Amino acid sequence: MNTLGSIFRITSFGESHGKGIGVIIDGCPSGIILDMEFIQSELDRRKPGQNRISSQRKESDKVEILSGAVDFITTGAPLTLWVRNKDARPLDYSEIQKAFRPSHADYTYFKKYHIRDEKGGGRSSARETISRVAAGAVARLLLRKLCPELTINAWVSGVGPLEYLDTPTDFSLTTDFCRAVQCPDIDFSAKAFEYIDEVRKSGDSTGGIIRCQATGVPAGLGEPVFGKLHALLGAAMLSINAVKGFEYGSGFEGTKMKGSQHNDLFYSDFNKEIHTRSNFSGGIQGGISNGEPICFRVAFKPTATILQPQTTVNTEGEEVVLMPKGRHDPCVVPRAVPIVEAMTALVLADMFLLDRIRRI
Amino acid sequence: MNTLGSIFRITSFGESHGKGIGVIIDGCPSGIILDMEFIQSELDRRKPGQNRISSQRKESDKVEILSGAVDFITTGAPLTLWVRNKDARPLDYSEIQKAFRPSHADYTYFKKYHIRDEKGGGRSSARETISRVAAGAVARLLLRKLCPELTINAWVSGVGPLEYLDTPTDFSLTTDFCRAVQCPDIDFSAKAFEYIDEVRKSGDSTGGIIRCQATGVPAGLGEPVFGKLHALLGAAMLSINAVKGFEYGSGFEGTKMKGSQHNDLFYSDFNKEIHTRSNFSGGIQGGISNGEPICFRVAFKPTATILQPQTTVNTEGEEVVLMPKGRHDPCVVPRAVPIVEAMTALVLADMFLLDRIRRI
Amino acid sequence: MNTLGSIFRITSFGESHGKGIGVIIDGCPSGIILDMEFIQSELDRRKPGQNRISSQRKESDKVEILSGAVDFITTGAPLTLWVRNKDARPLDYSEIQKAFRPSHADYTYFKKYHIRDEKGGGRSSARETISRVAAGAVARLLLRKLCPELTINAWVSGVGPLEYLDTPTDFSLTTDFCRAVQCPDIDFSAKAFEYIDEVRKSGDSTGGIIRCQATGVPAGLGEPVFGKLHALLGAAMLSINAVKGFEYGSGFEGTKMKGSQHNDLFYSDFNKEIHTRSNFSGGIQGGISNGEPICFRVAFKPTATILQPQTTVNTEGEEVVLMPKGRHDPCVVPRAVPIVEAMTALVLADMFLLDRIRRI
Amino acid sequence: MNTLGSIFRITSFGESHGKGIGVIIDGCPSGIILDMEFIQSELDRRKPGQNRISSQRKESDKVEILSGAVDFITTGAPLTLWVRNKDARPLDYSEIQKAFRPSHADYTYFKKYHIRDEKGGGRSSARETISRVAAGAVARLLLRKLCPELTINAWVSGVGPLEYLDTPTDFSLTTDFCRAVQCPDIDFSAKAFEYIDEVRKSGDSTGGIIRCQATGVPAGLGEPVFGKLHALLGAAMLSINAVKGFEYGSGFEGTKMKGSQHNDLFYSDFNKEIHTRSNFSGGIQGGISNGEPICFRVAFKPTATILQPQTTVNTEGEEVVLMPKGRHDPCVVPRAVPIVEAMTALVLADMFLLDRIRRI
Repeated sequence: MNTLGSIFRITSFGESHGKGIGVIIDGCPSGIILDMEFIQSELDRRKPGQNRISSQRKESDKVEILSGAVDFITTGAPLTLWVRNKDARPLDYSEIQKAFRPSHADYTYFKKYHIRDEKGGGRSSARETISRVAAGAVARLLLRKLCPELTINAWVSGVGPLEYLDTPTDFSLTTDFCRAVQCPDIDFSAKAFEYIDEVRKSGDSTGGIIRCQATGVPAGLGEPVFGKLHALLGAAMLSINAVKGFEYGSGFEGTKMKGSQHNDLFYSDFNKEIHTRSNFSGGIQGGISNGEPICFRVAFKPTATILQPQTTVNTEGEEVVLMPKGRHDPCVVPRAVPIVEAMTALVLADMFLLDRIRRI
Repeated sequence: MNTLGSIFRITSFGESHGKGIGVIIDGCPSGIILDMEFIQSELDRRKPGQNRISSQRKESDKVEILSGAVDFITTGAPLTLWVRNKDARPLDYSEIQKAFRPSHADYTYFKKYHIRDEKGGGRSSARETISRVAAGAVARLLLRKLCPELTINAWVSGVGPLEYLDTPTDFSLTTDFCRAVQCPDIDFSAKAFEYIDEVRKSGDSTGGIIRCQATGVPAGLGEPVFGKLHALLGAAMLSINAVKGFEYGSGFEGTKMKGSQHNDLFYSDFNKEIHTRSNFSGGIQGGISNGEPICFRVAFKPTATILQPQTTVNTEGEEVVLMPKGRHDPCVVPRAVPIVEAMTALVLADMFLLDRIRRI
Repeated sequence: MNTLGSIFRITSFGESHGKGIGVIIDGCPSGIILDMEFIQSELDRRKPGQNRISSQRKESDKVEILSGAVDFITTGAPLTLWVRNKDARPLDYSEIQKAFRPSHADYTYFKKYHIRDEKGGGRSSARETISRVAAGAVARLLLRKLCPELTINAWVSGVGPLEYLDTPTDFSLTTDFCRAVQCPDIDFSAKAFEYIDEVRKSGDSTGGIIRCQATGVPAGLGEPVFGKLHALLGAAMLSINAVKGFEYGSGFEGTKMKGSQHNDLFYSDFNKEIHTRSNFSGGIQGGISNGEPICFRVAFKPTATILQPQTTVNTEGEEVVLMPKGRHDPCVVPRAVPIVEAMTALVLADMFLLDRIRRI
Repeated sequence: MNTLGSIFRITSFGESHGKGIGVIIDGCPSGIILDMEFIQSELDRRKPGQNRISSQRKESDKVEILSGAVDFITTGAPLTLWVRNKDARPLDYSEIQKAFRPSHADYTYFKKYHIRDEKGGGRSSARETISRVAAGAVARLLLRKLCPELTINAWVSGVGPLEYLDTPTDFSLTTDFCRAVQCPDIDFSAKAFEYIDEVRKSGDSTGGIIRCQATGVPAGLGEPVFGKLHALLGAAMLSINAVKGFEYGSGFEGTKMKGSQHNDLFYSDFNKEIHTRSNFSGGIQGGISNGEPICFRVAFKPTATILQPQTTVNTEGEEVVLMPKGRHDPCVVPRAVPIVEAMTALVLADMFLLDRIRRI
């Protein structure tokens, strides 16, 4: 249950306030050159403390290989990547330790495991996503070999009430605001930064939306019935902390359309390649990629940690007032962009390998 | 990949225009009394031909036990349920057979398997969902034993542009329109029926939305990280034909809220039981049920089969005009209601069993 | 747990005295031509009632395709094969039903499932192996495509105290005794037949040994650590009813040797292909095939059903005398030969497909 | 494929000459007190360099917890144990690096992964078994809670031509020879030590046999068909380096018996508990434990590394003479005893948890 994937399979381990966060990739083919700069750069994209609208936890998030490679080339053995925690701070006060923080996982973990992880959100912390970004970077290296034309790009398309509806053609982040918000649109990023910063100042938080697009995915990836490509992508996205929804192609809005509008008509291009004139399918039909861009949206709730007093209940069932102190992101979506891309890469890499055996 | 679940595990088999549709439940505990009337009644709810807004295919969908029970009591052996096709009609014309129907799975299956299933949507047909409803009925029988107070209710909350936003307190379907549309609200159902019927008359189709609520689910179900309860529910729903999106609790709308509004504050009731004052979490926190009602929404696209000429491409890459003839539902959501409930039951049953081993 | 394999994955279902026995192959590539005569001929090899030293149950064991093929070509969908029981005879007498037959699974199933399958060995019957032989035949058809030079041959090498120690070079069964005993050696088969027949007449049973050899297996199949090729073969063999032991290559005898005798020295043949001068490794080194013949031995205990009175205990814990009546094989090994071959084919097919993704 | 178990699931990682060896236990229930002294003592039992008949590699094999516990109590999160290598010595000479050592995994790994792990037996080294012993120790701690009366004891019962046929009643190792050989029998241990030491002096190696017995296992563990308890035990044992065979109960010898001798007759003891008068079944019937002692034998080949010149072939296909230098065990069985016990504990723990969900 800490494992994802069928063949290219990752197992996540480690805690936010323990020794570190790691991931094993089992089923990683041999012969992949581990470009450590690239892997580190992906981790750096989700690192906290990058600007004033992200968590002020100080972590270098330096990745280390524990097993599975010789001279930075994968051997086919389980590939283990490990990031040591530097700035772990177990929660300080016994009172807070016992209070269930609203809309966190404290209460549900306690009901499940009958143990109170008093060190502060061991596994439920977003820090666990380091494992996904590290493994996702390896998946991208594998995909580069298997399918060089494939691209995966995610961007922030919503912050609180603000929306950016276009699909960028250039994903460069050209301003500080763009980099802070993780959106290529300059205007939207400026406004979104300001909005998040205001929310932060008021000790509050906000939600947001990430869109993702994968191009160059060949037709045929995904498995019918329970392993539909969008079901796997959906499960992968919904497994990211704070995610509340997933839709692909026309999504929820598409439910209002008629079939005659919504159907993506096929045509043959001048290369005799088959395409569709529209892409309400989001690149996936019957659970299998059709060669068009795969596109989907992911909804993130407002961060549960806010710097305002809130009433709650402690382990003994007594009502208490909680005034959280931890370091947090007032809006999770900017730092979640590389996570969404990583999860997409992990699902596609697994489906790529699996597809190799579907025909004789 | 035709298997779902970790311990209470179903494997779906069979084709729409083959001999029939079946399902194996492996890991079904022994000692469950198979109430065949109940199982059949669940299948009858998704049966085609129930009224003029559903497909006119004539199937009795009678379920038969092939293995796993003695005197209708499960033995712990793989439980196989089987529904024979009666009214299978392989597509008639060679021309149509070769054309890729827009927004169907014809093209993607062909790219994946390099074979053209000319019998008409063998596995990608919604008829495959018989396996889910049959298995889901068994899951409900199991859940009745494990957790008698648990309820699962889904209803149609959107048809094309029409919406029904309330959560019903009574799920009785009191009018023909309510039964046809699968929504307890009398007014909405009448309007939705009329809308679907108009769409049908114009040879077109429409999408819709289903909401689902499970109450009485104890706190503690679901697994952290990749097996989050909402990730499993999301994957299960997204694996249903025509589904384009899934959101739980506050969903996409919740992204616009602030944390101070969105956090569900805990309180202790007069029985010293812990509850939350709001339920934006949709009954799930950190991927684990918190005891509040689990609620989510599922988006269905307009049916791809429409009775209007459409341009497309055939297997040879030539553009052709397709005029579909098959029997189809102008709107899939009414018949998908029992499927959504069944998938919910399957996920919950699996998580219930798995949770038994999480503590010592 | 009724599923075997990682990618080419079979799920067995059905009972000896129920409606029939079936198997689903999930992950079967598309495009395999299902040679039904071959599949049936494999089933015929394990069919009861072939001669006087096998069970007198009368079954035609005719196989039927329930799903997964169009015009006898696999589509990539779950392939379901089904054999209806004709001569099922639930045990007759209530007294016998309640007695735990010695060295059968009656008692342990009762302890596990708290239910007494009074129809007589539902799942624990050797009749369940139909599912394996049917699926194994499909695996062989797949292997023929993937690796035409691969051969799999098993033969009876021991019956009670009688042993046949050679490895045959010709696997033709040229006499009735050879066919009845399933061993190419004429002398051994005659003696073994006589021995089994005597045992049968005395209402007793005997054990035996099967050897198996697979040639033409390319180097590289199998997975290190837990998925070692011999571990998978061993698990597959040990899952066959009545099997008590598995050894490959030098096996238990090899424990007495010294490394200087036992090591298989490599050499390069005139084609520059690498071989070993001896094959104590049994074609597997470090869990991975090395290109030499894979060879192993499987031990089968004497059939538990004997036609002699035996004291035992019934469900109420009372001691009773049991006089079994069922039809049984006085020695299981002749009919187990196709089962051993089938399980070998299943493991090799799975490893073949899995190996496709181990390198980039 | 580096993962074992269905619910109590271990993933092994790390290399003999890399940074270290680790294991993740996923599905470990919360609330287990990790007795680190016990876990370390289990690792110490398999540690090299304990006496002159074991490898002279100097490793302290100190275990460290990387994740999954707070204050040495499991939290339900993935439990990661890690042992850092101290005395890793990658092979020195380029010539040796390129030669395929006879009866090692060099050649087969090269054929599988197309990469030459020149650091000397990364994953195929017996050092990988640290992961099993560490995880097995946790499994034993779990079993102590679930089933305090359960015992698991393995001992060396064969070394080269020497055999010890009894089942000990006392497993104390009372002499240095007993401790070095890992057998409670004083006479056999002295002779076996002497034999191994002679073999060692001649630069040679020998094989051996380990027997194992588990008592106090309740009836009902194991799964029918492919998950038979002895199939899982067999696969677990066959996955240990150098294992060539597995048999349980009467094993290969039992094939010579008649059913009337071999059947284990049931009786009811004075507590109305059901037992069998003999135990040729080895405590397992129909793949499920019957409450009698589980007993089995495991065959280990002679160590492949010998200090004698051997002809072999290098990566270029040229014949070369190899004179190995590495540190090795002249006989692996003494150090394999804790590994056999650990694998037994892992299988039983998994089956114990799985059995909790087999009935309602």
